[in-house]
Amino acid sequence: MSKLKLNITMSLDGFVAGPDQSQENPIGVGGQELHRWLLPLEAFRVMHGQEGGEVNASTPFAEDILGGAGATIMGRNMFGGGPGPWDESWTGWWGDDPPYHHPTFVLTSHARDPLEMLGGTTFYFVTDGIESALEQARAAAGEKDVSLGGGASVAQQYLAAGLLDEIVVSVVPVMLGSGARLFENVGDAQLEQVESAEAPGVTHIRYVRR
Amino acid sequence: MSKLKLNITMSLDGFVAGPDQSQENPIGVGGQELHRWLLPLEAFRVMHGQEGGEVNASTPFAEDILGGAGATIMGRNMFGGGPGPWDESWTGWWGDDPPYHHPTFVLTSHARDPLEMLGGTTFYFVTDGIESALEQARAAAGEKDVSLGGGASVAQQYLAAGLLDEIVVSVVPVMLGSGARLFENVGDAQLEQVESAEAPGVTHIRYVRR
Repeated sequence: MSKLKLNITMSLDGFVAGPDQSQENPIGVGGQELHRWLLPLEAFRVMHGQEGGEVNASTPFAEDILGGAGATIMGRNMFGGGPGPWDESWTGWWGDDPPYHHPTFVLTSHARDPLEMLGGTTFYFVTDGIESALEQARAAAGEKDVSLGGGASVAQQYLAAGLLDEIVVSVVPVMLGSGARLFENVGDAQLEQVESAEAPGVTHIRYVRR
Repeated sequence: MSKLKLNITMSLDGFVAGPDQSQENPIGVGGQELHRWLLPLEAFRVMHGQEGGEVNASTPFAEDILGGAGATIMGRNMFGGGPGPWDESWTGWWGDDPPYHHPTFVLTSHARDPLEMLGGTTFYFVTDGIESALEQARAAAGEKDVSLGGGASVAQQYLAAGLLDEIVVSVVPVMLGSGARLFENVGDAQLEQVESAEAPGVTHIRYVRR
């Protein structure tokens, strides 16, 4: 069966988003500091239609975020345009051609028809919980893995439910002070370290469910 | 000038001690899970008068904790026997021959005469603050570095004051859920990653003050 995998960047003080998330600051105030390791990489830029960029020890981890998965699951906050009933003019943060290029399942309390974008991304809105979303995403992914896009709350729910097979935490020397913590409300999640890698300004640590 | 260095093990959810620290559980409930990477190492066992043990990628980091420093600073909780006025029968957790083997400065609100132990460890009780303790420790250490023993509160104070030159965080895949967090109340501490190393069950990340 395909694995459910999460790749996420965490500040040294444990946050995956800063405080006061909004349309202007989708990952919270200061949250943009988290991804300084990712944005200059060729692997990231190519996925967003840009040329050039760096290749370094982070490259396989950037490719791991963005490639290989056959479906993505994300929370409503990560899709944006909320909270509350849908304003159907909101079609996500990513423009007409989102970087997913596969079926993407958005966990929400508010039903909405599927939204077919360019480039192979279709957003499906799932109102019956994380297990249903995972089942649908696995069916859509076929032989490939399912990527958990985030944010923190959805990651916590899958972790606490024992449904997350693998997690790569990219630890950066940033202090956000407050915001959304990754590892809280996760019950007795049991993880085993299988790999860690030093890269410029970041350490990537891969854990699997024990 | 000699550097002030901290080596500390942190759970994946950010704690350096579990909840409910007591004489029975000096690093809190579950806290003993943190140091599973350290205890089997020959480098650790030798320092505590035992023979044998493992040598692996953690060895240089264990040696870095325990060797090389010319003085140590620690908080009252780490020395134990508190809080409150001293019961002078309390001489620390470590028996007659503590593993420091150099002058060791205990931050406390309660004055007490120096306590000379076997093996070169003398405990000095410092009541006039972290800067005074650092000054005294540097004078005692001579050319060598000063080791910050912990715990979390003292580490936070030195970090927030910009007095910590280097910190090695050993991240283990343990969830403590609650306890003493390392990275809170540290203001705008500015750290730069200089090294990270994969070892069995732990990732060691070295940061310096930026």
